[in-house]
Amino acid sequence: MTAVTDLVAEAAALDAADPLAHKRNEFDLDPGIAYFDGNSLGAPPKHVAGRLAAVVREEWGGRLIRSWSEGWWEAPVRVGERIAPLVGAAPGQVVVADSTSVDLFKALVAATRLNPGRDEILVDADTFPTDGYIADEVARLTGHTVRRVVAEDMPSEAGERTAVALINHVDYVTGRVHDMAELTAALHRAGALALWDLCHSVGALPVELDATGADLAVGCTYKFLNGGPGAPAFLYVATKWLDRFEQPLAGWAGDRDPFAMRGAYEAHDGIARGRAGTPDILSLLALDAALDVWDGVDRAVLREKGLALGGFFFRCADELLDGATIATPRGTDRGHQISVVDDDAAKTMAALIERGVIGDFRPPDVLRFGLAPLYTTYGEVLRAVTTLRELRVR
Amino acid sequence: MTAVTDLVAEAAALDAADPLAHKRNEFDLDPGIAYFDGNSLGAPPKHVAGRLAAVVREEWGGRLIRSWSEGWWEAPVRVGERIAPLVGAAPGQVVVADSTSVDLFKALVAATRLNPGRDEILVDADTFPTDGYIADEVARLTGHTVRRVVAEDMPSEAGERTAVALINHVDYVTGRVHDMAELTAALHRAGALALWDLCHSVGALPVELDATGADLAVGCTYKFLNGGPGAPAFLYVATKWLDRFEQPLAGWAGDRDPFAMRGAYEAHDGIARGRAGTPDILSLLALDAALDVWDGVDRAVLREKGLALGGFFFRCADELLDGATIATPRGTDRGHQISVVDDDAAKTMAALIERGVIGDFRPPDVLRFGLAPLYTTYGEVLRAVTTLRELRVR
Repeated sequence: MTAVTDLVAEAAALDAADPLAHKRNEFDLDPGIAYFDGNSLGAPPKHVAGRLAAVVREEWGGRLIRSWSEGWWEAPVRVGERIAPLVGAAPGQVVVADSTSVDLFKALVAATRLNPGRDEILVDADTFPTDGYIADEVARLTGHTVRRVVAEDMPSEAGERTAVALINHVDYVTGRVHDMAELTAALHRAGALALWDLCHSVGALPVELDATGADLAVGCTYKFLNGGPGAPAFLYVATKWLDRFEQPLAGWAGDRDPFAMRGAYEAHDGIARGRAGTPDILSLLALDAALDVWDGVDRAVLREKGLALGGFFFRCADELLDGATIATPRGTDRGHQISVVDDDAAKTMAALIERGVIGDFRPPDVLRFGLAPLYTTYGEVLRAVTTLRELRVR
Repeated sequence: MTAVTDLVAEAAALDAADPLAHKRNEFDLDPGIAYFDGNSLGAPPKHVAGRLAAVVREEWGGRLIRSWSEGWWEAPVRVGERIAPLVGAAPGQVVVADSTSVDLFKALVAATRLNPGRDEILVDADTFPTDGYIADEVARLTGHTVRRVVAEDMPSEAGERTAVALINHVDYVTGRVHDMAELTAALHRAGALALWDLCHSVGALPVELDATGADLAVGCTYKFLNGGPGAPAFLYVATKWLDRFEQPLAGWAGDRDPFAMRGAYEAHDGIARGRAGTPDILSLLALDAALDVWDGVDRAVLREKGLALGGFFFRCADELLDGATIATPRGTDRGHQISVVDDDAAKTMAALIERGVIGDFRPPDVLRFGLAPLYTTYGEVLRAVTTLRELRVR
């Protein structure tokens, strides 16, 4: 068995060689805390506070209503364009607006309209509950049926009745990544559309919406994109569908000519039609500022470090956590989150947090450790595992 | 004709006697600007910037994910309770979430479910366009028909087919206030529900939702509530309907036990079921801070000052703007906005703004001057009218 001191040296060597190590300094993180919940709430980039203060003082206070025509109104599409490269999207397909739940509703209703004559919505059975809740409500309004199917079975389950399938790119409990290219192709063979939930992959690993032929996607910006608590979500609509994309939340912001105050709604050209109400500027511009940390980040390097952090977690666990069950796959079919099974997960996580190791748990029995390649260190991974070991041998 | 110097003295006397004059100091307003667009974007209370900075630094950065259980999760209902007294609502009926457009969608779909067997939605024909757009989309999904009727005709037009009528409390173009008690009673006699859009009345004048028997209401917080650009909207559901209120945006935040991550949605007790996705904390807590300016404000005094500001506007216009047409009623059936008809409204408003008098215009021909009782002065009203006069005599 490797001694802990060896692992300490190994972690130090890995941190010293980390090509993303300089990014850590861009975040406002208490050095006494090992933070592993960037998969739930990303840490704040240091410059966001100052930028937000300037928005309040100069744009809201100083320019007042004039700011709407000085950049605010177009911000949902402009900030969407900044997210596009992180999800493998060419320009014109991403807009930032509303919450993930609301964007899922827009995307699902629109999907049923894009693929008429089919009466079924498939939902990833292991996805985050909201996805299923929203699908049930869409079905109630459109007359469709919802069927819950695990992602791996989508190719065999999708059929001539399937209008659209909603799949979580990374399973939020186990951290497993689903193969977007393969599943999308299988759904297309069945004549169904593929709608991807990117909440647990965007900002953590490369996503290739255009290259895999994905039809629609939604994602949140408050996890690995560090946009702030409850920051607005984004919606992706593939270019091929934009002209026919008809979403049900036809608020004035998605209208072709909103300030003409016309009586009948006509959808805006392009992705701006994904908007609903007046954009939430404080949150949106905090997100805009937060996205600066991605400048110059190579997505392949990001992925490599995320996998390496996870690999080091496995290595530490193998050495120090005898017999622990880890729900996350060991191969490259994982995102940047390690899920340790623990019978008393709620209490164990509370004890970890008390010791300065902050992750979270998901019922009934999973401890989640998010690995954010921009700021998580190998030293912190070792600290998480050694702290967990201390709690287990008590 | 009264000399301008007399009006100057009159404005000074009115400002000196203004019981709300001290409130002006709570706002961050350039003293060189006369701001009349609080009906579109309220001015920032001075303390909001510091409070928001503390949220970013201490709650997001310092406490990280722990903040969700230290007040963030419940904020939508907690902040809703602070708005309740401003709309005449007893506790438990107001939640802050999403945009006005999205909340309108929730309320309209829920209304059709609360009043089944009726197939018509009436929409105030003069309301802000979003209200009609959203109603059209709800109708498309639920099979209802939308009929546009001016508010005054609602009592005669509502019939046995009418499920719900959506009315703007204050007409956004003319500034006219509709009689909530009378129209709600008439709708109830026809067996229809009354859904009120409070965007142009909340924070400007007293609203009495409970006392008038209103069924549902929505409103925005970025106008007279000064919550910040695009700040989240609120939804009111009368206590009598709460148990049966079923909104279609069944995101996890409105679930009875969201962190149990259950497969089937079950609406939360009470008004929390009006929530959809993860609340947008930065915007929500900026709004929370902004609401402090209402501490100690008597709503009757607010109304009195708003009417007096408008009255002084009329008086100045009578003296200085020979033959000008004002679309706003002169009686007490007006909100706190004066609408001056001008054939070249867009250009005239641009010229006013160049001279430091900031209002807005609405097509085709209306100049809007919002009167925010918490910070607008009589001296500014006179400045608006004299500047308008200068432009007219050129």
